[in-house]
Amino acid sequence: MPFVRIDLIRGRRPEDIRAIADAAHQGIVDVLEIPVRDRFQVITEHDADHVIALDAGLGIERSDQLVMIQIFTPTGRTTEVKQQLFRTIAKHLEALGVAGADIFVSIMENNPQDWSFGFGRAQYVEGDLAVPGH
Amino acid sequence: MPFVRIDLIRGRRPEDIRAIADAAHQGIVDVLEIPVRDRFQVITEHDADHVIALDAGLGIERSDQLVMIQIFTPTGRTTEVKQQLFRTIAKHLEALGVAGADIFVSIMENNPQDWSFGFGRAQYVEGDLAVPGH
Amino acid sequence: MPFVRIDLIRGRRPEDIRAIADAAHQGIVDVLEIPVRDRFQVITEHDADHVIALDAGLGIERSDQLVMIQIFTPTGRTTEVKQQLFRTIAKHLEALGVAGADIFVSIMENNPQDWSFGFGRAQYVEGDLAVPGH
Repeated sequence: MPFVRIDLIRGRRPEDIRAIADAAHQGIVDVLEIPVRDRFQVITEHDADHVIALDAGLGIERSDQLVMIQIFTPTGRTTEVKQQLFRTIAKHLEALGVAGADIFVSIMENNPQDWSFGFGRAQYVEGDLAVPGH
Repeated sequence: MPFVRIDLIRGRRPEDIRAIADAAHQGIVDVLEIPVRDRFQVITEHDADHVIALDAGLGIERSDQLVMIQIFTPTGRTTEVKQQLFRTIAKHLEALGVAGADIFVSIMENNPQDWSFGFGRAQYVEGDLAVPGH
Repeated sequence: MPFVRIDLIRGRRPEDIRAIADAAHQGIVDVLEIPVRDRFQVITEHDADHVIALDAGLGIERSDQLVMIQIFTPTGRTTEVKQQLFRTIAKHLEALGVAGADIFVSIMENNPQDWSFGFGRAQYVEGDLAVPGH
């Protein structure tokens, strides 16, 4: 945890995709203070016509370099921390050349008892692992 | 927001896929009263054997025209609004020829502070955007 | 409900993928006491470099046989039930030869009114279906 889904439009080089995943993870590590090896990401590339991201009225112009990031993580982070998380992920992605207009991020929350990292154990509940930020 | 994942079985024409995405969005716009440009959708096509949708005991007979829609959106909608949302999405899809039996929809909720539409900002929190329906 | 996303690394035979989906579902049926036909699964295969699952500091060594399972289901299950769910899914997967180290499971919860199984109806709310475990 967090578990992160990254949706991209097809056409990037593998090393650029990896750099995007690294940048997203770095932002999460920086702000949520999780271990660097607490990394669970699934990246899916889509045809351009299978990803629709308009501007919600904000006047944002997206390109085919869009990066959609969906973060599933335990509840308990303040609004301020989430704002910092968005800013920090964007900062790391922008350092790679991703435009701020192409960075869409959302968070979905659950609880520590909702995670099993392996072996059928609930590691946060069974004491194998401390919950980051708690 | 909402962010919508649409999972389909491979084999439709691009224009039919687009029409399905449009219909799902129209249902959401009609009922949740969001701006028409508040549209964020990822469509994934799957091999038929990678999508399993039985009937939960309801006697529903699915076809390979199945449309699975997962809507991630801020909390705060009543049960009545959700019922209307399901009905309206189904109405728009049925108008395209999708059978009612092939329409599976679920909702997952978060909060306004869980969204960043671009530039690392939390637009609902930072006052750039009003939360629809609130 | 539950709706289950299973993410795998490409390279398995179709029958092995089906067996994994069956095993995940059997674990859910056993523990959550849902009808066997209450089965909604989407399986996605990914290139190996599109799935990153480290160990969260637990010293778990993953292989390319990794199975990532994300379960979306109504709230109301105790921590003990969730622990049993993780154990039981792992047991069924291990019986197929999947290593415990390769089994990553998470749960995301919503409510009964968040589900439409077809025809634009909200079957739990409209009395067509009882909510399992409630």
